[in-house]
Amino acid sequence: MSKIVIALGGNALGNTPKEQYENAIITAKEIVSIIGLGNLVTITHGNGPQIGMINSGFETASSQNKSIPIMPFPECGAMSQGYIGYHLQNAIQNELKRNGIQRDVISIITQIEVNPDDHAFLNPTKPIGRFYNEDEAIVINKEKNYIMKEDAGRGFRRVVPSPFPINIIEINVIKTLIENNHIVITCGGGGIPVIRNKDFLKGVDAVIDKDYASSLLARQIDADILLILTAIDHVMINFNKVNQKELKDISLDEAKLFLQNNEFASGSMEPKIKAGIDFLETNPYGTVIITSLGNAEQALSGHFGTRIKNLRRVK
Amino acid sequence: MSKIVIALGGNALGNTPKEQYENAIITAKEIVSIIGLGNLVTITHGNGPQIGMINSGFETASSQNKSIPIMPFPECGAMSQGYIGYHLQNAIQNELKRNGIQRDVISIITQIEVNPDDHAFLNPTKPIGRFYNEDEAIVINKEKNYIMKEDAGRGFRRVVPSPFPINIIEINVIKTLIENNHIVITCGGGGIPVIRNKDFLKGVDAVIDKDYASSLLARQIDADILLILTAIDHVMINFNKVNQKELKDISLDEAKLFLQNNEFASGSMEPKIKAGIDFLETNPYGTVIITSLGNAEQALSGHFGTRIKNLRRVK
Repeated sequence: MSKIVIALGGNALGNTPKEQYENAIITAKEIVSIIGLGNLVTITHGNGPQIGMINSGFETASSQNKSIPIMPFPECGAMSQGYIGYHLQNAIQNELKRNGIQRDVISIITQIEVNPDDHAFLNPTKPIGRFYNEDEAIVINKEKNYIMKEDAGRGFRRVVPSPFPINIIEINVIKTLIENNHIVITCGGGGIPVIRNKDFLKGVDAVIDKDYASSLLARQIDADILLILTAIDHVMINFNKVNQKELKDISLDEAKLFLQNNEFASGSMEPKIKAGIDFLETNPYGTVIITSLGNAEQALSGHFGTRIKNLRRVK
Repeated sequence: MSKIVIALGGNALGNTPKEQYENAIITAKEIVSIIGLGNLVTITHGNGPQIGMINSGFETASSQNKSIPIMPFPECGAMSQGYIGYHLQNAIQNELKRNGIQRDVISIITQIEVNPDDHAFLNPTKPIGRFYNEDEAIVINKEKNYIMKEDAGRGFRRVVPSPFPINIIEINVIKTLIENNHIVITCGGGGIPVIRNKDFLKGVDAVIDKDYASSLLARQIDADILLILTAIDHVMINFNKVNQKELKDISLDEAKLFLQNNEFASGSMEPKIKAGIDFLETNPYGTVIITSLGNAEQALSGHFGTRIKNLRRVK
């Protein structure tokens, strides 16, 4: 039995409640098959499209109807944890039942502390919400003062600060639940970012990278495997060049070298690799797996995806 | 030490994120003072104004921007659990810290099963969201098939069914958390209503009364006290008549008699009394307390509010 943190991408969940629930059902099948193999699974998820949709939904509604308030990012994040958590929790419960597995699954509202002096607050980088073309992006920047950035050839998106997670506030509760064999959905959207002021925590307008949050979680619960499910089958080097290459099994040292050589797109593959490195530095006997949704089981058995291990410390 | 379920009204939390957070801080002081007396507290809350705001927010936004979806009620309920749960959780944590109490507090996404044959589905009664004029109401009914009802001369509102809660899906997790001395925020807005179809649970467009859900929770965790905090100091009989009377300590039998005599307004005090009766029928040594926010501590010590006990079974 392995203790696995599965990090799901928010992009894979679709753009409407109907799409999201359908995708949650597909995702649940994969998660439950991993649970069925005897693994103890904890789930995290992104919320990029969802928090963007919630934030701009309230912004649009508020401009039409003054009784509807603008919703700040921490509250939008909390809503997205409820919205996505409910679908995943419901779909996983149903799939467990279908497979005759008696286990409980729970989504918890999770706050994660960030440093108010994090440089990210000076340089927003995290893409949020829908894609726009360049002309639209220019108009939005002018009208709303949002910072818009080009995102991996897919168009322009709003960017917000993405500070580094330093402390999962609800970690004791997460540990209690895992010790009692419950399947926990936590750190949704990277957690609700909070800053500490004289021991009091308060939400802050930012979005934590869900892979960094997942790595922190994996370290704090002493996970064996950090499994990051994303849109691609394998991590690539020399991406989009003639000598492009899929990575299968690499060492922590190789991962660091590739990172140093800027092989990975910032805001996309780079944080996943960094999250993996941080995990392996603390849990040297751990494994990081990066692959696409639908191939997790194969990747866990070593036949698919990209695996990173600390080969100098591996069992 | 008593095991107490505290049911908070959604109306007391205000209409904007700022108002809600400020109210959560006030509420947290009261809750933490009860915890500080050595009680084991579990918290539920309503979501009437919040779920209406979220639902009509998405409806308004969607009518302006097709990339924003309409949000069905179960998803709006899940969002409201995240939104309210985050504020309460954060405020209670901060207040615990201020008081030097080392405890963890957690909001969990909670689904509650309802019976698809519940008569409530044939007769929607719970008004939700914004008001429309008659012409708008007719159009909405035609286009979206929503049931629109005239609401006390103030215009038309959508009404949704308010079925009875029969099963808290996440009850095992709640019990694990309570056994481990964690402070749990659960059954938000009465829980996300789900119906069972061949063992699979699916969300349904409805809103469960939070007092009924709180009573079910209090029964299932074997609570000593169900403490319902609302806008009034005491339950009244002969309300608004010359012989109007505040109730202080009454028996279960008296509560049943007053209920039979239609002393309590439906959708307001009636469900609270019914919720209390159901709790005392199952937990005959329990106590139901109904009073206003700000007076909970006094009410617990017997000096304020309305207390109901099963006097034939009382210790």
